[in-house]
Amino acid sequence: MTAAVAKQDGCVLHLLTISYGQRHQIEMDRAKQVAQALDAASHRIVPVDLRSVAESALTGAKLVPKDRPAAGRAAGVPVTYVPARNTIFLAMAAAYAETVGAPWIYFGANVIDYSGYPDCRPDYLRAFEQVLRLGTRAGVEGRSIEIRTPLLMLTKAEIIRLGISLAAPLHLTHSCYDPSAEGKACGRCDSCLIRLEGFREAGAVDPVAYVSH
Amino acid sequence: MTAAVAKQDGCVLHLLTISYGQRHQIEMDRAKQVAQALDAASHRIVPVDLRSVAESALTGAKLVPKDRPAAGRAAGVPVTYVPARNTIFLAMAAAYAETVGAPWIYFGANVIDYSGYPDCRPDYLRAFEQVLRLGTRAGVEGRSIEIRTPLLMLTKAEIIRLGISLAAPLHLTHSCYDPSAEGKACGRCDSCLIRLEGFREAGAVDPVAYVSH
Repeated sequence: MTAAVAKQDGCVLHLLTISYGQRHQIEMDRAKQVAQALDAASHRIVPVDLRSVAESALTGAKLVPKDRPAAGRAAGVPVTYVPARNTIFLAMAAAYAETVGAPWIYFGANVIDYSGYPDCRPDYLRAFEQVLRLGTRAGVEGRSIEIRTPLLMLTKAEIIRLGISLAAPLHLTHSCYDPSAEGKACGRCDSCLIRLEGFREAGAVDPVAYVSH
Repeated sequence: MTAAVAKQDGCVLHLLTISYGQRHQIEMDRAKQVAQALDAASHRIVPVDLRSVAESALTGAKLVPKDRPAAGRAAGVPVTYVPARNTIFLAMAAAYAETVGAPWIYFGANVIDYSGYPDCRPDYLRAFEQVLRLGTRAGVEGRSIEIRTPLLMLTKAEIIRLGISLAAPLHLTHSCYDPSAEGKACGRCDSCLIRLEGFREAGAVDPVAYVSH
């Protein structure tokens, strides 16, 4: 979705996917298909084994609770928080941006529907830009790298409407946290529930396959 | 060296080594020996293939100039700068610190002898701490993670005197940028020259083996 916005903005796309030991390999396959669908100038898939340094339900052996009640969503940092994950992702993206000479990092963070992740908040993102201003060659030479988060303040329904208006390949996106659904979405995890609510509110039909919902 | 200071400070050591595609594998072997010598509680070696996202003389096929004149050292960002390298390292360290519940990241950056790296400067490090305050679970829950850089403002001679006073395993440290020296230090690259000057100034003999100097 975010890459589709960058393309709409007229950017040449250099896409970066981090394979971080998450349990759903399907994300990598879909990322390749998205890169192709958007005619990206380059696409790198970089393995970073976060399991060895970061404990989380997203990377570890523990199961993500499938039926976590919606009321519980807002309470604190979610179980699916991966320590410093977005900081690692943005650092890798910054290295790639410096290497290809890109002035912008497009990053798909979103704070509205799921505000428990500290590393999705605007003040965090501005702090990270300051790190890039001070800590990269590009920054000290006056070519600052800006983090663009076009989805940050949108509701899921607004994101879906935007995606449809851009003809973004929504059928290739994967949001489900449950790897046991094998190629389909489970329809029951937080991420599926939020996505389905979004499509409902947008008055659109989700093109991906679900196990149940 | 930095780990020896942390031990002296009374810390339980959880050591992290990033294998980032640098051409000298010897750094990994020495890191294991240092972890053992300092009786670390844990030591993780995490591969992060920076070659795929970051171009640099330290990670790429290009040779590091062996006889770069000393006068050239201060001019701009060195050829051995790896885009966003320390930001990636500190992000990984932050993930590990959160996972083990560590309040401090000890980081061996130094600005005196080699000030060309933007991601070694104090204002950069303070900016990164701000990222951790805002972007980690530990930070938002009031358990801030502090970056300690005990070597930051020391001259190389002061670092070596400190190492000797702490009985740090200086014989296991490796500073050389030239991988062709195979287990020895080349004695000619910037890093070797700076190290040797430091030992000379400290009035001490470097215990590692050199090809020539």
